[in-house]
Amino acid sequence: MAIKTMEELFIHELSDIYSAEKQLTKALPKLSRAASSVGLGEAFDMHLEETQGQIERIDQIVEILGIRLKRIKCAAMEGLVEEGKEIIDSMVEGPVRDAALIGAAQKVEHYEIASYGTLAAIAKQLGYKDALKLLLETLEEERMTDEKLTRIAEGGGNQQAAQADERG
Amino acid sequence: MAIKTMEELFIHELSDIYSAEKQLTKALPKLSRAASSVGLGEAFDMHLEETQGQIERIDQIVEILGIRLKRIKCAAMEGLVEEGKEIIDSMVEGPVRDAALIGAAQKVEHYEIASYGTLAAIAKQLGYKDALKLLLETLEEERMTDEKLTRIAEGGGNQQAAQADERG
Repeated sequence: MAIKTMEELFIHELSDIYSAEKQLTKALPKLSRAASSVGLGEAFDMHLEETQGQIERIDQIVEILGIRLKRIKCAAMEGLVEEGKEIIDSMVEGPVRDAALIGAAQKVEHYEIASYGTLAAIAKQLGYKDALKLLLETLEEERMTDEKLTRIAEGGGNQQAAQADERG
Repeated sequence: MAIKTMEELFIHELSDIYSAEKQLTKALPKLSRAASSVGLGEAFDMHLEETQGQIERIDQIVEILGIRLKRIKCAAMEGLVEEGKEIIDSMVEGPVRDAALIGAAQKVEHYEIASYGTLAAIAKQLGYKDALKLLLETLEEERMTDEKLTRIAEGGGNQQAAQADERG
């Protein structure tokens, strides 16, 4: 990581989140299949579509700025995806696993919120106006997805799981 | 990870964030020493004090609920702390490195925001009223720290870095 300028920091961060999004497109169908509540499965499916759109926005930024991304693997997303896999492998399908999957997915969303926030701050300072616009669109989508997961956790999956606990 | 009930999920999540906070208390002094802007160094120092208070809150929750935490190491925080270390080792001190450190720290904050958010949602459903109050206090602190880092990035560190770029 030989970063000396803000432009290089921008390219590094953008390469990192590009890797993260690519990893996520592979993980989301597995999360969707593992969800027991229909609402949660649909939320994962919808976020897969959004994620593909977010990757396209990164491609657009690369083209607009005439930069080249670095081939790096986002280790943080690797760990977060692994956590999701562990939940699927070790827990029985049902509302408690749904609650665990929502928790894992919200960690993913917050990683992305932090990344796009940093990228937007740097883009603003470097005067990358078109890139900034695209980054803010994605940032808003990630925030909405996080809020949707909170609503599902509060009103849906987790609620059922708590009731199951009371019955059990 | 043999989790079957919401109570077990709560203990697992709480054990994970306890490990994360412990790791962070070791990392923050290094981040503080590496910061070139005084404001950023002070923000890291202040967050170290907060983190110690947050660990005490977890201890209180453990006592209130009469539970026992599991000895697990939070792999996500391990990766995030490693990222901070990489920045310190590979970049020259100055405003661009400060901007990178702020980005890394905001990923840490967002990991914690997602974790405490999940814990609060579960605590609410399980009727853990006293635990919920403590979790929400910490959640609010994490959000404030994230906002403070954004303000430093926008007005302080990153701004200077962009100016250094223009000069350079």
